[in-house]
Amino acid sequence: MNKNKSNEVESTNNLDGIKLSTIFSGIKKPFKNKDDLLLIQLDEGSAIAGVFTKSLTASAPVIHSKNNLISSEKPSVRAIIVNSGNANAFTGHLGEKTVDIVTDFLSNKINCNPHEVFMASTGVIGEVLNPELIINGLKGMNSNHETNWLKAADTIRTTDTFSKISSRKCLIDDVEVDIIGIAKGSGMIAPNMATMLGFIFTNANISSDILQQLLQKANEKSFNSITVDSDTSTSDTVLFASTRKAKHHQIKNVSEKRLNNFKENLNSLMLDLAKLIVKDGEGASKFITINISGASSKKAAQKIGFSIANSPLVKTAIAGEDANWGRIIMAIGKSGERADRDKIKIYIGDELVTNNGMKAENYSEIIATKHLQEKEIIISADVGVGKSRATVYTCDLTHEYISINADYRS
Amino acid sequence: MNKNKSNEVESTNNLDGIKLSTIFSGIKKPFKNKDDLLLIQLDEGSAIAGVFTKSLTASAPVIHSKNNLISSEKPSVRAIIVNSGNANAFTGHLGEKTVDIVTDFLSNKINCNPHEVFMASTGVIGEVLNPELIINGLKGMNSNHETNWLKAADTIRTTDTFSKISSRKCLIDDVEVDIIGIAKGSGMIAPNMATMLGFIFTNANISSDILQQLLQKANEKSFNSITVDSDTSTSDTVLFASTRKAKHHQIKNVSEKRLNNFKENLNSLMLDLAKLIVKDGEGASKFITINISGASSKKAAQKIGFSIANSPLVKTAIAGEDANWGRIIMAIGKSGERADRDKIKIYIGDELVTNNGMKAENYSEIIATKHLQEKEIIISADVGVGKSRATVYTCDLTHEYISINADYRS
Repeated sequence: MNKNKSNEVESTNNLDGIKLSTIFSGIKKPFKNKDDLLLIQLDEGSAIAGVFTKSLTASAPVIHSKNNLISSEKPSVRAIIVNSGNANAFTGHLGEKTVDIVTDFLSNKINCNPHEVFMASTGVIGEVLNPELIINGLKGMNSNHETNWLKAADTIRTTDTFSKISSRKCLIDDVEVDIIGIAKGSGMIAPNMATMLGFIFTNANISSDILQQLLQKANEKSFNSITVDSDTSTSDTVLFASTRKAKHHQIKNVSEKRLNNFKENLNSLMLDLAKLIVKDGEGASKFITINISGASSKKAAQKIGFSIANSPLVKTAIAGEDANWGRIIMAIGKSGERADRDKIKIYIGDELVTNNGMKAENYSEIIATKHLQEKEIIISADVGVGKSRATVYTCDLTHEYISINADYRS
Repeated sequence: MNKNKSNEVESTNNLDGIKLSTIFSGIKKPFKNKDDLLLIQLDEGSAIAGVFTKSLTASAPVIHSKNNLISSEKPSVRAIIVNSGNANAFTGHLGEKTVDIVTDFLSNKINCNPHEVFMASTGVIGEVLNPELIINGLKGMNSNHETNWLKAADTIRTTDTFSKISSRKCLIDDVEVDIIGIAKGSGMIAPNMATMLGFIFTNANISSDILQQLLQKANEKSFNSITVDSDTSTSDTVLFASTRKAKHHQIKNVSEKRLNNFKENLNSLMLDLAKLIVKDGEGASKFITINISGASSKKAAQKIGFSIANSPLVKTAIAGEDANWGRIIMAIGKSGERADRDKIKIYIGDELVTNNGMKAENYSEIIATKHLQEKEIIISADVGVGKSRATVYTCDLTHEYISINADYRS
């Protein structure tokens, strides 16, 4: 796949009230010669929201950041520490201790409440993360901050083959507002080294409760609509913070029409980042969009979409450019959601494959196969029982995925 | 993997009251030079039970056989027709018509109720199955039946690399009773060509309602406890029939102690067949047993087991003989079932890997890796919240799986 860096963002693009610093702290293996610790500092008054992995074996930093959000009615943020190389997951009480030591140190240093310091870690599971490495790293950071978002995105990479960054300019009232986001993840696919992390920032004057609602909604259609191999990390974290410095009137309600342009831009920025993660899926050679319609509910549509997207048989057929549509029928059938066999319409690209409970009369396998030879594949299915829709994104399953994951640590 | 044929059964082993016939009918491609149609005839008075795929896009033969069972209070059977080469799935009303024509023809020929004729088909999805091929096949079958179970098992193969057959002799009261079973499937993994089918026969004098209860219970611990790649076929069918010719007193109740020896033997025979299917999993190089204990319920234990068994990351790590236990933690976490992080005990073989919410103090990666270099892998996990257990079986995920499934039809 064309792994082009989507650097729509000038790497030194600034967002007033946010300072970025990176350093090599020694958590990663030194030969990688790349920073592994990112500190994001925000001015006083910054609001924050977050969504996290649903894993029941969530990492210590996830538990800490979640607690920050629920322990305050109006969550605020002064710092986010992100390290790559060690996930601090399944490290027992030692894992929690590391988070406490680091966040206490930093809240003392910058003189804020410990609940205003968030943390996210990605890397190996089950290895103790030494807090001293992080503290020494924080001490050694250059106080002459250059706000280099590309360097920040680069620092949080693990198996990612490129940095993931996206930005938007939009309007609230007549005031120009910025949104910048960085992410990491080669899919949610290698929790020992490839958690999905996302950090999104804006200067919009929006309170934390409205940020939270905006984030959850945008998250459903972006990071929660992608899959590489169905595996879920212990560390997935998306934080969304606002400096509130933009000069428009404050937003009082999430449904105000003044927010429409901002919402559109936030949604498309997060979808951008999510798609970049899929494109960087381990071993991926094709990007696959799966559109489900005619489902009995939104949730059913998404479940059917993921049943197709996660099917190894569908993913290998697409890797082999084989219009083996029986596997799509199988995946719809195994989802457990309602579908009317005799009304299911499957399309590969624009080619109608099935109709009236069987192969469509004019179906051309040649046309379908031609579409599968492209790099961006679209599979659509109307399951014929309702009006609900969902779109999910995935990649194909190739020999390279096996090579990366069977041989990874050796 | 050592794909040895488990021919504990003499291929001409007989079960009084059952006649087998096979023929090449032309449904399969002729160059395969192998029979593709099996007819099993049973004497009057034979009882039958069945379990089927839960797919909502089930094939026409599945729908027909299910209807047979529910349309009679005491289901009986005179014939089972099985073809390989075409699944007759997603073939709309034409699929149902084919089943009707074939079962009507046969019920007329052998003078029985159409509800006593069962059918199962496996092969390509979405291609119309021509009933004339089957009828001509049935007409051409040799009336001089030799009861060759091995040949029967061979006829129903598709991508299977060996025939699957198992038998038991057991006691009810003091009377010797036979059980014979055949199966096909290289996992539930390639619904276009590798549905899971199983046919089990006994001479025990057991009525259909008790057969049904015995089958469902044994099925939970055998065919419902295996996975190759999480994909479910449109055609999975297991039928269990009894000639009732054995001379013990009739069984009145499924909980009679007189049935204990029979139950044990039925369970172990079905587990045998299920394991043979996993061992024949496409591209499989290792057979993996996953034991879950300490779960909050039986269902939770099975869900956690399948979450591990279906994780591409776990399966590729095992293929790579890499003791990457973080992936097992991830899979437990993503199952959505309760687990106490600080009480989870994971074992690779006999080696304790985790304890107290982190890597066990004396854990030796060398010992764990040594176990992973074997052909039969055992992963155990106590999740520390209850007393329920489950065992599931799977195989690893290798380059060969990708080759078989990405390149299959080409």
